[in-house]
Formats: sequence, C-alpha cells, structure tokens
Amino acid sequence: MAEGYGGRLERASEAARRAGLSALVVAPSADLLYLSGYDPPPLERLTCLVVRPGKNPVLVVPTLERPLAESSGLSKLTEIVSWDETDDPYMLVGKVVGRGKRLGCSDRMWAAHLLRLQQEIPAASFTPASAVLGPLRAVKDAGELERLRRAARYADETFRRLLKDPLESATERDVADRLSDLLLEMGNDRVAFTIVGSGPNAASPHHDPGVRTIQARDAVVLDFGGRSAGYFSDVSRTVAVREATPELKEVYAVVQEAQEQAFRTARPGVPAEEVDRSARQVIQDAGYGELFVHRTGHGIGLEEHEAPYIVEGNEEPLRPGMCFSIEPGIYVPGRLGVRIEDIVSVTEDSAARLNHAPRDLEIVA
Amino acid sequence: MAEGYGGRLERASEAARRAGLSALVVAPSADLLYLSGYDPPPLERLTCLVVRPGKNPVLVVPTLERPLAESSGLSKLTEIVSWDETDDPYMLVGKVVGRGKRLGCSDRMWAAHLLRLQQEIPAASFTPASAVLGPLRAVKDAGELERLRRAARYADETFRRLLKDPLESATERDVADRLSDLLLEMGNDRVAFTIVGSGPNAASPHHDPGVRTIQARDAVVLDFGGRSAGYFSDVSRTVAVREATPELKEVYAVVQEAQEQAFRTARPGVPAEEVDRSARQVIQDAGYGELFVHRTGHGIGLEEHEAPYIVEGNEEPLRPGMCFSIEPGIYVPGRLGVRIEDIVSVTEDSAARLNHAPRDLEIVA
Repeated sequence: MAEGYGGRLERASEAARRAGLSALVVAPSADLLYLSGYDPPPLERLTCLVVRPGKNPVLVVPTLERPLAESSGLSKLTEIVSWDETDDPYMLVGKVVGRGKRLGCSDRMWAAHLLRLQQEIPAASFTPASAVLGPLRAVKDAGELERLRRAARYADETFRRLLKDPLESATERDVADRLSDLLLEMGNDRVAFTIVGSGPNAASPHHDPGVRTIQARDAVVLDFGGRSAGYFSDVSRTVAVREATPELKEVYAVVQEAQEQAFRTARPGVPAEEVDRSARQVIQDAGYGELFVHRTGHGIGLEEHEAPYIVEGNEEPLRPGMCFSIEPGIYVPGRLGVRIEDIVSVTEDSAARLNHAPRDLEIVA
Repeated sequence: MAEGYGGRLERASEAARRAGLSALVVAPSADLLYLSGYDPPPLERLTCLVVRPGKNPVLVVPTLERPLAESSGLSKLTEIVSWDETDDPYMLVGKVVGRGKRLGCSDRMWAAHLLRLQQEIPAASFTPASAVLGPLRAVKDAGELERLRRAARYADETFRRLLKDPLESATERDVADRLSDLLLEMGNDRVAFTIVGSGPNAASPHHDPGVRTIQARDAVVLDFGGRSAGYFSDVSRTVAVREATPELKEVYAVVQEAQEQAFRTARPGVPAEEVDRSARQVIQDAGYGELFVHRTGHGIGLEEHEAPYIVEGNEEPLRPGMCFSIEPGIYVPGRLGVRIEDIVSVTEDSAARLNHAPRDLEIVA
C-alpha cells in the first residue's frame, strides 16, 4: 500500500471538515480507488468507506468480501467492519456516521443504496461528495501525470497504426474493432470507448459505430480511449478519405482554430468557462455556433469524465496539474461532423498537450 | 425495434400505477435496456426515461445524444426531449413528472443525479424502482430464456476447454486470462468476471486472481461469466489438482448435497428463502454452518445480479420463468474453499438447470 493513500484520506477528511460535512460516504468508484486503492465492483451488496474529520476511516464491507479488502491492504488504512447477508448494512453506516449530520455521498453510489441510507439516517442531509473530492482529484500529482501521459501516447500510437490500413470500404464497426485491438496491443488494460462516425454519421457526436461502409470523400470522426494503470486516454481526430470536400476543409479549419485558441487560453487562474468561451467564440464568429452542440471539454483521470468540466457556468479557476480535454466540434446534420480533441495539462504558467497525433487535416486511404 | 418494448413499457406503467407511483424515472442501466432497448453508457450528463401511468413515456437526453437515441428507434416508443449543455435537465424532468408525487427511481441511477432530482422536486418522495421493475424483469420470456441457455452453454464449454490444459504450475492470473480468452472465443460479447481462488485463496469468495502458483493438492474455485446478446452467464466449479485431500472430499460432498437439495426445493410457489434454507440446512447439519458466509443465489438476466435474491428474508414466491443461481459454498480460512453453482430456471412444476458442466469432484492436471 502506497503511503499516498493515507495522505489522500487526510486531505479528504480535512476538505470535508472545511465544507461543513460530518462524513463522506464513498461507494465503490473512482473516488474509493483514489482514496484507498481499493477497487471492488459496485454491487447490490453495500460496500462503503466512511471518511470522518478527526476520526479514523471505516470501511463497511459484506463479510464475503472481507478477505478481498484485507488482502488489498485496507486494514492498514482503515478499520474494517463487515456485515453478514441478513444484517442491515445501512444501519451499520448510520451507527458509524452518527445522527443529524450533513453527509457527502459519492456521486456514483447507486440510488438504491442512497435511498436506503436516507431512510436509515432521516435527520441527515446528503450532498454530492464531488464538491469535496472533485477539486482534490482534479489536480494530478507527478505519478498521475506520468500515467496520463503514457495513456495519451498509447492513444496517439493507436491512431498512427490505424491509418496504416485503408479506411475506405471498411465498415465503421470494422474500424472500431481495429481501434480496440490496437488499444489493447499498446498495453492498455482495457478499451474505454471507440466512436467511429463516417459521412453523415459523423454529425452524431456519440455515434455508435455501425454497418455503414466508409466511402471516398467521407469525413470520419475517430474518438477513442483506453485505460492504462487506472488512468484514461481520450483523443479525437477527423480524417478525410481520399479527398476533402470544400465544406470539410472550411469546417475543419474553424474547428482547428477553435481548438488552438482554447489551448492558448488554458493557464492557471483562468476560469474553466473561459476555455469554453474561447473555442465557442471562434466557431460562432465563423457562423457555426448552433452546430457546436456540446461543451468544450472535461477533466480526465481515474474516470473518463471528471472535474474540471470545461463548460459555460464553471467559474472554477484552473490550477497547475489539472488535466482535461479540449474538443470543440461542428456537426452539420445529414452531411458531416468534425471534432479535434487533445488532453492537456495545466502547467505553472500555461498548458501542455499530452496528445501529439497530427492536428492538420489528413487525407487518408 | 421489437414490439416487445412497447408491451414492456405498458406493463411497467401499469405496475407503477398499482404501486401508487406517479412515475418511474429510469437512468441508463439494465432497466432502461429492458424497457426500451436503449443502452447508452451512464454519464454525468443526465439521460432518463420517464414512464407515467396513462401517459406516453418521455426520454430526456442531452442534445449531443439525441441522434444516437433517434437512430436507436426510440422515437417510435417515446417522446424525446433534449437539453443543451447549459440547460438544467433536472428541471426538465421535474416538469415532465409534475410536483408532489411518489416517484420510482432506477436502482443504478447515480446518487449525484438522484440528489439533484430531489432538490428540484422537493415535494416528491423517491423509492427504488426495483420494487416495480424487479418482479417484471425476474420472469423471463421465451426469447430471454433462450439467451440465458446459450450464455450458460458458452460457460460450460469454457470450463470444459479450460481443463484441457493443466492448472498445476499456472498462476491464478494465467488461469483467469485463459478463462477470459475462452469466454470471448465462445462468442460472448464480453467477459463479466473471472474468479480463480486456489488453495487458501479459495477461502475468499470474491478472490481477485493473483500471482499465486497453483499446486498439487490445491482445491481451485473457478467462478466466471460472460455476456451474450445482453444476457449473463455465471457458473462455479471447484476442482482438485492431482489429488483431493480428505478434507476437500468431505467439504465437497456437503456442498454438492446442499446444491442438490436447493435445486430440488426450487419450484413455483416456494418462497425464495426456502431455497436458501434447504441449502443452508445441509451445511449446518454437517457442522459447517458458520463457514457458508453468503446467500445461496441471485437472479440473473440483463444484470449479473438481479431479483429474485435467494436469501433468508425474501418471502417472494418463485414463479415459472424466474432464473437464478444456486451456489452454496464452504470457506475454511487459511485452507480451502468449495463452491458449486448452476443457473436454474423455474418451470411449470419444478426447475431446470441451465448449466451442465460436471458437478462431481474432478481431479485435474
């Protein structure tokens, strides 16, 4: 067990105190992994870590998972309390947190567990724990940055190798399968997602790769990521098959400029929403504002999407160590879509891209 | 889009009405897949299907996923309402459900979404939607049964092929990787889980396969499953490497008898807990009661674990079409573990096993 978890637990406990919370109740999720290194699957049987300011953390686990928790080194970090199949684990959590308190609940806890906790601890009010844990997790330490850089390298290399074979005449599904194979070959421990949208399908930002055969003059949006040592990659490139139409060239240039402007805007102290605005401004000025239907980006780390969200309304100032995507896009219904995405990390005075795949429009076979 | 979804939505709406709920709010999950065939990943951006008695269902989706929802055929089943990145989707759901009502919330909705819904609709009380959807999903139709049978066949064949190569001298991790490869080769679209617990590690029911090298005289618990056409498999067998110790033979015979008794108990009208009791009685009578640390089983279908749970306290009578695991086990800390698990389906007058891998103790290389 790295000592790092002890430090994270202390910082979380201190942040909870400052936020006026009497405890954080953390279910299996990236939050639990971040705080303790323990990563069991979320199940209908309640597992949760209770983090309390000024007290030792307590892990509540089903008896049958107690050996798993102990072998994960948890007993050095927390007290472990186990419950049998006919016990009421919610009552157990109620005893640990006490009554009449403000509690932070991990964002991904299942509603079924939260509803039972609310029933068992009626005097408590629950709020999302991301208010406390989001800012901690958003700033990456050196080890996390190294993992994100490696994950990004794997994604860039996947893109490079993908283009060694022609896209034309392949189906979107074929290309998605090749992306998956390459992501695993690189050394990722799993594939996170593979979006392949060709021709008119590229206008659907979260298109599910299907049977459409890729044709000459298609723009193809490739948006994919994997997980390596717990940390995610996420990169998007848009390529032209055989030939770029005039419309594609025009749209591509706008998206590329928006991506570049957003990247230049990102530095410590700048509110997250400013990065979104700078990309959006370029696209609006070019007359495509209505067709940029999503935020500019999202944080990345132990989750594919996490704080900071690069969206209008998020006034959170950027800090060194924050890592997020910059991924503006333009989607012309029925015709085409373009998205260009890099993960960037905020440095002491600006930002650095973690992805280095070519950003100029590539004409591919 | 199969007509089946329309019928399921109607039955869910009628069941909600009978339960006194004014709406079901269903997030991306097996519940949403069951009701509509739509299976987007759960995200921080709210997607949910609102099912209301006597009214048409409404799907609330982020604008960028509207094309995905439409291409999934959802527009034939539901009204689709989309929200832009700076809109408040919770307010939108509030408008759809109205105020001051009892609402069912899908069990796996993220707490962060539920907390925002509770804030936005303060007069509403939320309960887990599984009270309504669990009984519907628990009884499988002919198409679902066929898929579960196929998934079970894939798992049985995986077990058969695994034993063609020796376990001795392989690490647990090696064996888990072989299980994953075989599950995919069979035709599963993904691996659900692979538990390989050898020697003393077998005493941890949810052991995470590690670096331990499997040795002669080990008992090895193999518990694994995959997903085929949306439906899961889940089978456990325990084998002896080279030679079975007298203790293993004794423990194995008890678990096998418990599994058989539970199977014989399962038939329409019998409360789920009776199946648990019949297995537990055999193990208690043999003096191992303290070492059977989990329930006897769980339902299976679009989720690995779902209703009906085969556990003390669940008085729900079994009905034809219900499918669940029967998986008693005995875990001797520091020494060994034995678990034998089949998926069974309740028939008109008894039950049928879906798994047919050998249940007698196998001595393997």
